[in-house]
Amino acid sequence: MTRTGRRPGTPDTRDAILAVARRRFATRGYDATSLRSIAADARVDPALLIHYFGTKEDLFTEATGLPIRVSELLAGMGGASLPETIEALVRGYLLLVDSDQSRNAILALVRSAVSHEQAAAMLREFLTAELLTSIAALTSLSNAPLRASLVAAQLVGIAMLRHVVRVGPVARATPDEIVALVAPVIERYLI
Amino acid sequence: MTRTGRRPGTPDTRDAILAVARRRFATRGYDATSLRSIAADARVDPALLIHYFGTKEDLFTEATGLPIRVSELLAGMGGASLPETIEALVRGYLLLVDSDQSRNAILALVRSAVSHEQAAAMLREFLTAELLTSIAALTSLSNAPLRASLVAAQLVGIAMLRHVVRVGPVARATPDEIVALVAPVIERYLI
Repeated sequence: MTRTGRRPGTPDTRDAILAVARRRFATRGYDATSLRSIAADARVDPALLIHYFGTKEDLFTEATGLPIRVSELLAGMGGASLPETIEALVRGYLLLVDSDQSRNAILALVRSAVSHEQAAAMLREFLTAELLTSIAALTSLSNAPLRASLVAAQLVGIAMLRHVVRVGPVARATPDEIVALVAPVIERYLI
Repeated sequence: MTRTGRRPGTPDTRDAILAVARRRFATRGYDATSLRSIAADARVDPALLIHYFGTKEDLFTEATGLPIRVSELLAGMGGASLPETIEALVRGYLLLVDSDQSRNAILALVRSAVSHEQAAAMLREFLTAELLTSIAALTSLSNAPLRASLVAAQLVGIAMLRHVVRVGPVARATPDEIVALVAPVIERYLI
């Protein structure tokens, strides 16, 4: 066995990678952070990083506890009409934020974002680079980035009222009831 | 001077009243807490409490740092059309959350609500008793409480993205740009 100066793959290595990822996402932002730069910083082979975590989005999800995998959320929507896509987006979002694990992750994320600029920066970068870009691509109207951000604000607000502040009507509503009211409103932003 | 067992009006008294108010709003909720019960608990004359703070809503605002005085927000909307009322609601909300002082109060409130059940309960009671009731009264559609809550979710989400997470397009948009996009969407919930 030769020693290359790179760490072998152990549970400690995994934690070390996550620590480096959190620091780089927080200080450089999601966009400017590559898997390669995290691997270099953590002194591991990029292949090991991919082996452990998959894509950059997966690593971010793991590093932040963010429960939303945007790629999964929007998967299978190709060829669907805009109303169908929006309904799937809202339904998928609710599925994600309604799980116990996700609820706790959301609480942790929001708590971090209001207290620490770095956590807010991390959440902002991710929302901007991944979620908002995907939603903005659904519309050809002017102001697409602002429209997409207001859609995201609606979704973030629903999670806040449903799981953080727990306002009765939103907390008790079924996903179907919420989708029925919210999907047409999101359409209004994008069409 | 006779001593009645009631505290005289000093700055300490004011702070003591605020401490009692915070505790009662948090434990009993906004609805079940009367000015009279706070005065009794703080061992002051109810008149002193009114002299210091005005209404129960004013006292709540002061006790929580909540920047939104719903009564002011909806004042002067009598006789206006629903679109005009909604536009005034969104514009008034942005005016409130965009001030430096309010931004700090929002950060403090959200930080409290995600960390402490009592703070979440206080915010929930207030939103339910005051804001949601006023918005729900604007519509005669079924599901009015859920519709009003989703409107509130949109507004809360905008404050989160504009001032907490600071997502570019929402953070940089002028109030006019936001009103132009959000008001028709809120109409869609209520008409």
